[in-house]
Amino acid sequence: MASGGVSIDEAMRRAIALGARGLGTTSPNPIVGCVLLDAAGEVVGEGFHAYAGGPHAEIVALAQAGERARGGTAIVTLEPCNHTGRTGPCTRALINAGVAKVVVGVADPDPVARGGAETLRAAGVEVEMGVREDEAEAGNIAWLTSVRRGWPYVTWKYAATLDGRSAAADGTSMWITSEAARMDVHALRCASDAVMVGIGTVLADDPRLTARNLRDGSLAIRQPLRVVVDSAGRTPAGAKVRDNAAATWVATAAQVGTGPDGQVDLQALLAALHVRGVRSVLLEGGPRLAGAFLAAGLVDKVVGYVAPRLLGAGASALVDAGVSTISEAIDLDLTDVTRVGPDLRFTAVPRKKEG
Amino acid sequence: MASGGVSIDEAMRRAIALGARGLGTTSPNPIVGCVLLDAAGEVVGEGFHAYAGGPHAEIVALAQAGERARGGTAIVTLEPCNHTGRTGPCTRALINAGVAKVVVGVADPDPVARGGAETLRAAGVEVEMGVREDEAEAGNIAWLTSVRRGWPYVTWKYAATLDGRSAAADGTSMWITSEAARMDVHALRCASDAVMVGIGTVLADDPRLTARNLRDGSLAIRQPLRVVVDSAGRTPAGAKVRDNAAATWVATAAQVGTGPDGQVDLQALLAALHVRGVRSVLLEGGPRLAGAFLAAGLVDKVVGYVAPRLLGAGASALVDAGVSTISEAIDLDLTDVTRVGPDLRFTAVPRKKEG
Repeated sequence: MASGGVSIDEAMRRAIALGARGLGTTSPNPIVGCVLLDAAGEVVGEGFHAYAGGPHAEIVALAQAGERARGGTAIVTLEPCNHTGRTGPCTRALINAGVAKVVVGVADPDPVARGGAETLRAAGVEVEMGVREDEAEAGNIAWLTSVRRGWPYVTWKYAATLDGRSAAADGTSMWITSEAARMDVHALRCASDAVMVGIGTVLADDPRLTARNLRDGSLAIRQPLRVVVDSAGRTPAGAKVRDNAAATWVATAAQVGTGPDGQVDLQALLAALHVRGVRSVLLEGGPRLAGAFLAAGLVDKVVGYVAPRLLGAGASALVDAGVSTISEAIDLDLTDVTRVGPDLRFTAVPRKKEG
Repeated sequence: MASGGVSIDEAMRRAIALGARGLGTTSPNPIVGCVLLDAAGEVVGEGFHAYAGGPHAEIVALAQAGERARGGTAIVTLEPCNHTGRTGPCTRALINAGVAKVVVGVADPDPVARGGAETLRAAGVEVEMGVREDEAEAGNIAWLTSVRRGWPYVTWKYAATLDGRSAAADGTSMWITSEAARMDVHALRCASDAVMVGIGTVLADDPRLTARNLRDGSLAIRQPLRVVVDSAGRTPAGAKVRDNAAATWVATAAQVGTGPDGQVDLQALLAALHVRGVRSVLLEGGPRLAGAFLAAGLVDKVVGYVAPRLLGAGASALVDAGVSTISEAIDLDLTDVTRVGPDLRFTAVPRKKEG
């Protein structure tokens, strides 16, 4: 607890940082952080939502604060829920605790849970919406995006040389990028609900697709769902993705349906994953599956690890993205470029096409 | 002129910056900057070498200083020349002016002109070598490298998408990168003695290869030599590289000799360019010529303009670089990553192979 009051703005930044601790373990629930100030502006409670079925951020913070919440202010990254799910509504808990004001980052788009602000106002609680909204949105982007539109947020991750190759002429690819970059990928996996590859990658590389500590090989406590896009059901019985280290879905065209290209219907695949509670997918290739996702406009974010090396031959990181001439190029907005060991990590979002 | 004395270190930084003004116009001579301090440490003269046949940096600075040079210190990026070429030896001019001390960035490797420090010392002038040597070296890297080994410094420049494509599936490539990136390329051309492409690029794109102001199309005052690597002499009579805007050499196998691949011998080509006074070459592709240069270990620097776009099909920026498996990848050391408009510019140097 801080001594001396903190501003609402500081408290929201703290709540956003707290919420991020739940990244990768809350689905199908959102990322939420909460800071409670007493009437004098002192921090009297903090909480974040850690896992589905566990207490919501507001409940954790209220439990810490006890009677000191009365007359105080709750700063929450997401509009408090208004419904009884596995836990009771947070609006009721805030009202019962006598909180005088609730400050919200982002409004809840979930048709089942939303309406919290109205309920609070009807009970005489002051509500302020949209404080540090962009940062609160960014911290919860996968959940917010997937709830608004009904399918998961898709991040395409690739690794390549400066000349765009993901393997050498003879097919060797271990390793294109540094250990530091590969550790970063495992952190991405930890923060994702599902990791997806195409059958070509399974047949070529037989990856495990688990989230691991690369130093000692130990598995992360929570593993993302492994998804193999395998139209014709060719994943071998002995493939590593079928081991017991994590849950796996070999998604065939027979199960999911067929798209215009005769392969697994990607939109239907994402909808099916959404129903299973998957809010974020890390698409790890191969190049043709990535091309199909990009061509269909189904990629929300691109994370590229680029090694300062040249190959001049070998498989490209991306194939058949539906682009035949330069004016059709898929434009990205670079949001970040960071060195990861000797490599560079690009983060970018596809630019929305006009019209 | 500064009021109040400047340190030797400051003066050398200033001399290096001055020297850079000659970049692109001094060949076959080096880049040189000079700052003259009087006995009290006041700046009394500044100069740089602007063009071959013009006065050397030291002479310009001495002329400015006049009698105030007596007892003073000359700070020069390169060891003063010791021979009479188109102009007299700078060592003699410094001695005659009564300079008490000469501070040098980099020693002169030129077998004809070197020995300046010895001559100065023999005349009673104090000489200090190696001040800000790395920066002085970097500012003159093309000339120093080419004089030390006998062939020009080669910079490979390419432009590509994030997935390593230099053209779309239908061959369109105008424009992969932004106007800002293309203007930067014209600045690179201005600073180079020669611009080189393969016959494939001439036949496909018919480039002008001049250094221009892209806004108004006006030509730079000095144009680099245009070199077409054209083993079989297929450059069309009407190709734009044959216009009168700049000098052009269509280098055929018959003129230069044939390498192991039956094409123009690249080492012999570079040696021939060196004899012509070319100290720096900007290799602009295409992908196969770049591959041949890289495979032969003849690339000194890589400058890549990467647009945040994806194509998923089309020609790669680099083809056949002599790498067949991942362990043979050509490793680079990234020296700079800079945003140029919406694009990124990578600067890197190939890592020397062990053994």
